[in-house]
Amino acid sequence: MSQPYTPTPRTRLVREAERAVYDREVAYRILDEGFLCHVGFVADGQPFVIPTSYGRQDANLYIHGSAASRMLRNLKESIPVCVTVTLLHGLVLARSIFNHSMNYESVVILGKATLVDDPVEKLEALRLLSEHIIPGRWADSRQPNERELKATSVLRVPIEEFSAKVRKGPAVDDEEDYSFPTWAGVVPLEIRAGEPINDARLQPGQTAPEYARQYSRRR
Amino acid sequence: MSQPYTPTPRTRLVREAERAVYDREVAYRILDEGFLCHVGFVADGQPFVIPTSYGRQDANLYIHGSAASRMLRNLKESIPVCVTVTLLHGLVLARSIFNHSMNYESVVILGKATLVDDPVEKLEALRLLSEHIIPGRWADSRQPNERELKATSVLRVPIEEFSAKVRKGPAVDDEEDYSFPTWAGVVPLEIRAGEPINDARLQPGQTAPEYARQYSRRR
Repeated sequence: MSQPYTPTPRTRLVREAERAVYDREVAYRILDEGFLCHVGFVADGQPFVIPTSYGRQDANLYIHGSAASRMLRNLKESIPVCVTVTLLHGLVLARSIFNHSMNYESVVILGKATLVDDPVEKLEALRLLSEHIIPGRWADSRQPNERELKATSVLRVPIEEFSAKVRKGPAVDDEEDYSFPTWAGVVPLEIRAGEPINDARLQPGQTAPEYARQYSRRR
Repeated sequence: MSQPYTPTPRTRLVREAERAVYDREVAYRILDEGFLCHVGFVADGQPFVIPTSYGRQDANLYIHGSAASRMLRNLKESIPVCVTVTLLHGLVLARSIFNHSMNYESVVILGKATLVDDPVEKLEALRLLSEHIIPGRWADSRQPNERELKATSVLRVPIEEFSAKVRKGPAVDDEEDYSFPTWAGVVPLEIRAGEPINDARLQPGQTAPEYARQYSRRR
């Protein structure tokens, strides 16, 4: 179901506005296909951008705090962040250099990240994160104990102020360039999973489960 | 040749320090395998993170300004940025949830982005960017004209203050977890290029060139 949303001045796209999508369902689809985000925050006036994993529940994004210790050191109540998720789908080769492009989908979320303190919410967020990355894995793993839960940080970012951007389809050249003598088209790109590599210390009889053998981000 | 480099307090890794690499050659290899970066900058106290493409020449990174209009509006002389490049190589499934991880390589560059004004440097930077993404394409395309050059922004970021992070290999579980009855291992991930899709308005006789048919990021 389409849920249009009115962009704020901070999330309204100023360039290539025709690629803008302010629809919550589109943003959720992109967020659910990806699992790696880049989190931006500011420390002493300097921006930092750190890759980390995430999960989503309704209008909340949960970010694994592993990579964000510099951010967490600065975190009192909450900290302004930007969370960006980009899915790359192809290289667009036009006749002119100027019209070369990429097919991609991205979501940019502006918001305040807050540490998840409540142990029940934290455990649930870790389950979400795990199931977001590899559905089915949580139940097959040794669950977090109290010490591990304490050593793990999870941040919550509400998905309130956001924009999505989608570029797809063929190259768009200037009309007079269509006679230029070169090939044009799209090179599709996708993330593919290879054969699972067994751990060297597997217990006898353990074989790779289907979620590892058939891993895909298609949703 | 290894070129060790002394991290600054801002680029010294505070967590998982065993994954830190302060070697320029390692950073260059990662930067040269990727072509999508996430650029962080600050506007009105709010961090923004924007995906865009880049190229490298020696110790300079050139960033395509297409996606960064919000940044460019704020750009006077130069603006502090963080440029992060992440290559994802696999999912690491441990016995315990806590020890799940990802195999990846990333580079984080802190620096000041400056607009490339000089038309000769700008054209050369655009050629670098193009050749970085698809080697061989520049010569086959209609070159940028003066109007297009003016409409394109390129930013230069010196690669001076940076860190790289590399996580590879198998899962590392706590010793007592190796008897836990589950599978463990690595699901390798890679970006694969599919068959090139011909543009609907190709000139007769144009076929996909080898750089499109055999596209790979392996360097």
